[in-house]
Amino acid sequence: MRATNANVADMLAALAGGVGAARFLSGLLDVVPATEVTAIVNTGDDDKFHGLWVCPDLDSVTYHLSGNHNHETGWGLADETFRVMEGLDRFGSPTWFRLGDRDLATHLYRTERLNAGATLSEVTSEIAKAWGLEINLIPMTNDRVATRITIADNHEEQSLQEWFVKNQSTPVVESVRFENAEMAQAAPGVIEALSQAETIIICPSNPIISISPILAVPKIREVLIDRRDHVVGVSPIIAGRTVRGPADRLMDALGIEVSCVGVAATYQDFCGTLVIDSRDADLAGRVNSLGVRAVISDTMMSNSRIAAALARETVAART
Amino acid sequence: MRATNANVADMLAALAGGVGAARFLSGLLDVVPATEVTAIVNTGDDDKFHGLWVCPDLDSVTYHLSGNHNHETGWGLADETFRVMEGLDRFGSPTWFRLGDRDLATHLYRTERLNAGATLSEVTSEIAKAWGLEINLIPMTNDRVATRITIADNHEEQSLQEWFVKNQSTPVVESVRFENAEMAQAAPGVIEALSQAETIIICPSNPIISISPILAVPKIREVLIDRRDHVVGVSPIIAGRTVRGPADRLMDALGIEVSCVGVAATYQDFCGTLVIDSRDADLAGRVNSLGVRAVISDTMMSNSRIAAALARETVAART
Repeated sequence: MRATNANVADMLAALAGGVGAARFLSGLLDVVPATEVTAIVNTGDDDKFHGLWVCPDLDSVTYHLSGNHNHETGWGLADETFRVMEGLDRFGSPTWFRLGDRDLATHLYRTERLNAGATLSEVTSEIAKAWGLEINLIPMTNDRVATRITIADNHEEQSLQEWFVKNQSTPVVESVRFENAEMAQAAPGVIEALSQAETIIICPSNPIISISPILAVPKIREVLIDRRDHVVGVSPIIAGRTVRGPADRLMDALGIEVSCVGVAATYQDFCGTLVIDSRDADLAGRVNSLGVRAVISDTMMSNSRIAAALARETVAART
Repeated sequence: MRATNANVADMLAALAGGVGAARFLSGLLDVVPATEVTAIVNTGDDDKFHGLWVCPDLDSVTYHLSGNHNHETGWGLADETFRVMEGLDRFGSPTWFRLGDRDLATHLYRTERLNAGATLSEVTSEIAKAWGLEINLIPMTNDRVATRITIADNHEEQSLQEWFVKNQSTPVVESVRFENAEMAQAAPGVIEALSQAETIIICPSNPIISISPILAVPKIREVLIDRRDHVVGVSPIIAGRTVRGPADRLMDALGIEVSCVGVAATYQDFCGTLVIDSRDADLAGRVNSLGVRAVISDTMMSNSRIAAALARETVAART
């Protein structure tokens, strides 16, 4: 457990994707003050629907941390309705990406502010405050970076949401790229948070489509490599599978072993410590031999108590 | 009753505002084939809310004619909810203009299409088709014309919706202008419909803020003057009051007699016949002496049977 008096030495930074990260961060805020945490969130999944900018990972984190997420679906808000989507069906608009009525308010607000010239950082901070969050929530970049998936079958490219939601992540993937990443700038505060944090956590998110887009933004990977001893990852793979989402299929398609060893191999340049699940204790030796120190814990966050314990052990795991 | 075989000689054109026009047109479509009718709708009330283009009069007509309007409020859709608005309250967004969830689908669709380069005419036609309408529904212009209200008290200008909805049309009005009207072009089909129609109906709409903006678009008033004998107006003023809306207060503020005589005086240049309510039968002589032929009918459309009868008499009223 951290001291409650925040100072630079106590600061934590976390690289985060969607629901897995949101659950982890929720546990983290049970054990450290929210004002000590900077979460740097993937925006490669962001897309425009019906003219509105949708940031699924930022919103998943916001809705989870404010306790308003939908427990049943995992995504979106609790007590949600879909009347606007039903209305859009009349016009033949594509409504496979289901935006709830309560959720739409967020996208309307964000889009109007962006169109008025606000940066995504600014709007994200406004939205987080409106939901009562005290964590420092920032997008990886204020520039548009788009995760693009090439399908093995026909070598055609799809947006992340087309592949993940519309096609239910069934088409086998040939490759993944982050369009425009090389031109993007890390959002204000990202490099500072990573440079100053006592511990940098890589949340249990999809290594390929949640963490890699963040690392593709210039300077982020470099500062992590410099601070490798301060970086603690949490493996999203447990006993050869993901808890949710397509990380296992993506890793497999890209020739990465679907295990915490594969995660360690992906992260080894910039991650000194990897928290792996107790079900994978037998793989600790192989993780260690990659130069990544394996720490064994219960990483299956089936309730908030386990999530908090995992967060506490992750913070304590840094060398 | 008209023949069901449409040809140019049968065609009807109507200048229309919001709810009053919608009720009248609904009656009209009970007595003539929808494919014979072109409704030219005021867009001076249009405004942007939360980044979305809202066209209150076009939507009122569409929702009424498809039978989906809200009978209780008069505006918006039946069976409506306001969950997106409730969500926007969290962000401190101004939500005094209540957009329902079902209704928002229309604005999202329209805004996305406009942003993609479609004209308002094109989108209006798409929306009308999506709601199953066969009437030819066209905006007065595809250009932005904004009705602006100057308040007597402080000589400040407000948008129509600020004055009408936010301030409940209570501030006394000094003047009304139609910003950008002189630069606007009538939408495709407007001049043609007015030139060719056997009868041109001026629906029982607000003369100041529903009909005048249409007339302010170059060429529209001129073609009506040329075809004065074909023009039949319906007075929205009954026994010195409007059925709904602020027409009476506006006429009074602008020095126009609040009666069918005032309406006749406003329309006399381009309107050969005015249908007035039987409650105003004693004013027929004064209307006639303005050179506008008064026709007496029941204009209080308290049910669809009366609306249909009024429409039938209006069509028959032309000289």
